[in-house]
Amino acid sequence: MTRTRIHNLSMSLDGFATGEGQAPDAPFGHAGQRLHEWMIATRFGAPILGRTGGTVGVDNAFAQQHEPGIGAEIMGAGKFGPPGWQDDADWRGWWGSNPPFHTPTFVLTHRPRSPIEMAGGTTFHFLDASPAEALDVAREAAAGQDVRIGGGPTVARDFIAAGLVDHVHLVQVPIVLGRGVRLWDGLEALEADYAIEAVSTPSGVTHLTFTRS
Amino acid sequence: MTRTRIHNLSMSLDGFATGEGQAPDAPFGHAGQRLHEWMIATRFGAPILGRTGGTVGVDNAFAQQHEPGIGAEIMGAGKFGPPGWQDDADWRGWWGSNPPFHTPTFVLTHRPRSPIEMAGGTTFHFLDASPAEALDVAREAAAGQDVRIGGGPTVARDFIAAGLVDHVHLVQVPIVLGRGVRLWDGLEALEADYAIEAVSTPSGVTHLTFTRS
Repeated sequence: MTRTRIHNLSMSLDGFATGEGQAPDAPFGHAGQRLHEWMIATRFGAPILGRTGGTVGVDNAFAQQHEPGIGAEIMGAGKFGPPGWQDDADWRGWWGSNPPFHTPTFVLTHRPRSPIEMAGGTTFHFLDASPAEALDVAREAAAGQDVRIGGGPTVARDFIAAGLVDHVHLVQVPIVLGRGVRLWDGLEALEADYAIEAVSTPSGVTHLTFTRS
Repeated sequence: MTRTRIHNLSMSLDGFATGEGQAPDAPFGHAGQRLHEWMIATRFGAPILGRTGGTVGVDNAFAQQHEPGIGAEIMGAGKFGPPGWQDDADWRGWWGSNPPFHTPTFVLTHRPRSPIEMAGGTTFHFLDASPAEALDVAREAAAGQDVRIGGGPTVARDFIAAGLVDHVHLVQVPIVLGRGVRLWDGLEALEADYAIEAVSTPSGVTHLTFTRS
């Protein structure tokens, strides 16, 4: 049985997984890079900023789980581009010519466009669909591998609330953002459906895993 | 120099330090005992429910810090009693004849009454005062020892936001309460003023310490 997974979803102590004021030069709003410094410091994450090296400890062990066994990703419109990207026919995502997905990648938007084939195996498909419908399409494309729900937080929350996610990896970063998009809204009693484990690491973050029980 | 400290302030993953619907038979509303099971399981916490024994591991090491070096406590009206206790002239708190404070204890309320001397060294004093004013009074009473801000979450937040707290110990419990009183509101960028450490324990909770830097 294939699974639906979320990885490396980082949030502040007060539960904001992105800040306020998302813009072309600020994909995470006023949060800047602060939610992802832990990941950029790892061997898995260093290439995101074009770096080499990086740590290979506990944070990296979690971070690299983002890739293996994934056959497709689903992401929200807010992850694909800044507000209004739908009005820019040339927008191809934040990630340059070779995005870090390397699978079919489904972008949820009320204004679908034609698929965009990128280098490295990523093809962006655009879907106006409910979470369950999108997951059916992505599963088919994943050809027996798992589907990753790539975020942002609103999409992650929608899929979790719909009972569609088997494994969630959250990373709690010791900052208080105060504003932005909350992950937890509408997820009361989530613990009833999942086995939850937590581990803090020397970088100061706490990894939480939720595995459907 | 004496310090102002918060200990064992437990909250859900989504940041609620008490649930919704506080009532005489439900001091933490719909959260019930779930925010404090980790503490009741320790040697420090077992007596709260009249039990003996209890664990003496990492959770207990944190829990017992509640007591040493404390000369006075400040608590909010919502910790002292259920909504409306001010209308009950006989209300003497939730804790029976020997409350677990054993020091002068200052209850913030807009309707002060005469002090109540309890067994075991606790005397309840009632103050209509700002956080800074209350802290001055409590420091005087603490006679060179530290002052504990006992909560609930609104009072803890007010004292933290006013820059009056030197050390905060939070305990994050792996449940999603969905509603209640949030600790984090109004505390944006708190990390700028504190060194923060985190450690998860086998019981599943994560202890966070904030120490003024």
